[in-house]
Amino acid sequence: MRTEYAVGVDVGGTRIAVGLVERKGRILKEAKRLTPQGGPFAVVDGIIECVQDVVSNVHPSEIAGVGIGLPAQIDFLRQSVEFCTNLPLAGVDVRSLVMSRLRHEITIDNDGHLAAFGESRFGVAKGARDFIMITIGTGVGGGMFVGGEPYRGSRGMGSEIGHMVIQMDGPPCPCGGNGHIESYLGRPALAAKGKEVASTFKGRAILEAAGGDLDAVTAEAVVKAALGGDEAATRVLMEAGVILGRALVGLVNLLNPQLIVVGGGIGESASFMVERAAEVIAEEALAGRRDVRVVQAELGNDAGVLGAAVLAFDEHDAREGLHR
Amino acid sequence: MRTEYAVGVDVGGTRIAVGLVERKGRILKEAKRLTPQGGPFAVVDGIIECVQDVVSNVHPSEIAGVGIGLPAQIDFLRQSVEFCTNLPLAGVDVRSLVMSRLRHEITIDNDGHLAAFGESRFGVAKGARDFIMITIGTGVGGGMFVGGEPYRGSRGMGSEIGHMVIQMDGPPCPCGGNGHIESYLGRPALAAKGKEVASTFKGRAILEAAGGDLDAVTAEAVVKAALGGDEAATRVLMEAGVILGRALVGLVNLLNPQLIVVGGGIGESASFMVERAAEVIAEEALAGRRDVRVVQAELGNDAGVLGAAVLAFDEHDAREGLHR
Repeated sequence: MRTEYAVGVDVGGTRIAVGLVERKGRILKEAKRLTPQGGPFAVVDGIIECVQDVVSNVHPSEIAGVGIGLPAQIDFLRQSVEFCTNLPLAGVDVRSLVMSRLRHEITIDNDGHLAAFGESRFGVAKGARDFIMITIGTGVGGGMFVGGEPYRGSRGMGSEIGHMVIQMDGPPCPCGGNGHIESYLGRPALAAKGKEVASTFKGRAILEAAGGDLDAVTAEAVVKAALGGDEAATRVLMEAGVILGRALVGLVNLLNPQLIVVGGGIGESASFMVERAAEVIAEEALAGRRDVRVVQAELGNDAGVLGAAVLAFDEHDAREGLHR
Repeated sequence: MRTEYAVGVDVGGTRIAVGLVERKGRILKEAKRLTPQGGPFAVVDGIIECVQDVVSNVHPSEIAGVGIGLPAQIDFLRQSVEFCTNLPLAGVDVRSLVMSRLRHEITIDNDGHLAAFGESRFGVAKGARDFIMITIGTGVGGGMFVGGEPYRGSRGMGSEIGHMVIQMDGPPCPCGGNGHIESYLGRPALAAKGKEVASTFKGRAILEAAGGDLDAVTAEAVVKAALGGDEAATRVLMEAGVILGRALVGLVNLLNPQLIVVGGGIGESASFMVERAAEVIAEEALAGRRDVRVVQAELGNDAGVLGAAVLAFDEHDAREGLHR
């Protein structure tokens, strides 16, 4: 049976967002709440409550399933949470716990992957068979599509773009590696750079964007000052753009994608950074690969919910033997 | 019709090797010659002569086709040579030129890819569905298999592993990029490091391995001294192993392969380097991905010829609608 709705769940370190989504990508009903901080069961309860809220007026048979995006390394084949920095979910069987309380099929996946699913079906990557999505927020993640299919790798754990090495003698990453993309481009890195500049005279616009409090300087304050025309803030983002560009040059040379989508809270707002990165690619990628398009994501805060819903639809259709 | 033989051609900057290969991977007859230096037509003539030599006693109908590996960026879908550093073949329609003189189907591909084809069918990667091959010689190249199929990317140019960025402020690469793997691990880089050490007292074993001539110190001299037990030479390779390891950590985090094969003249001989790289991966890759096997290639100098023959068999069988 071709069901009409799926539920997309986007679990973040600070917030859970859940949507009832039509096949065409419209979000009919939404529920949001802060992510409970009381351990794994509290998080699972939070998910379940939000899902129950959005499906309350729909007959279960009309729902294809529930897709859940987690900020974690997921073994997709086993549907297990292998590693999770910001939430106490490593080793927790989230899928079974949720499924035991809801009468729907549940599928979990990494949140960066699901953002790529969302952009692929409803966003800027529609029709692209080979593309890379990089999400730049507090962490750096992403997903890849190869020949129209999501890339999962030998154990179903897919691509952790943020943990590529771009500076082999670079600073340690919380994951145990060194010089990873995430150490240079995540919110903490941009905020640290912003504070450094804001403590000098030329950085006063950044300080202002942070309400005059040096300790309150965030990556967002830097972006805000840059969008307001400030030169020092723009320079911070341009430098980040060169770093992003060099990281992407490696990916372009390795993977020869047709499209790169830059998303995440920072990636979607810092247009200077993305444009600079595109210039670096045009200058430094191998000949014949420089025509890759570099664009910003367009689904914004809904990317996670929409991507999780796409996953639920696809898993449902695969079970039923339906083709997209 | 299921043919019994294919011809594999391995074109290098200094040497052309051609083999008549059975389906099971035995090389029945071989022809080798120095690569002609007189322009593109001379190279093509050299290829044709060698092929004619190995097929002279076989009926054309028994030959599946000719696979040609070139040290070049190949657009596989168009069968065009996009970029070639060491031979004057960029923009030359090698396939048509060879085909117009031989009555066989011709397919061209990048030599690193074909080494992966060879190891996949007849070597150490037999049965591996998701693996990465990195070839370390004068250049650094390689190929990837995803879900049992060679990875080609959106324009058929596949993976240039040697041109991944591992040090974004690193030295310029001849390709136009910066801090690429090739700049650190190719023969010239190891030779330079070897010379540096050989000019000091502790490097006398390396100097000896080069016949006492500092200018004659090559990457091979370093490997030879290390295999002979020399400490300084071993240290050079261990340091290269850390660099290789960090580069592979990024690839493991990105691609989650089950196996990494290290080949090429240096990769196959420098076992210290490969072992050290494996240790770095076990320490620094993301949890759940550290069990990737890291092994040396086993086809040696035959990898290119065998891989090119595999390509010719596969293309033939695809044309005829046969399954492997």
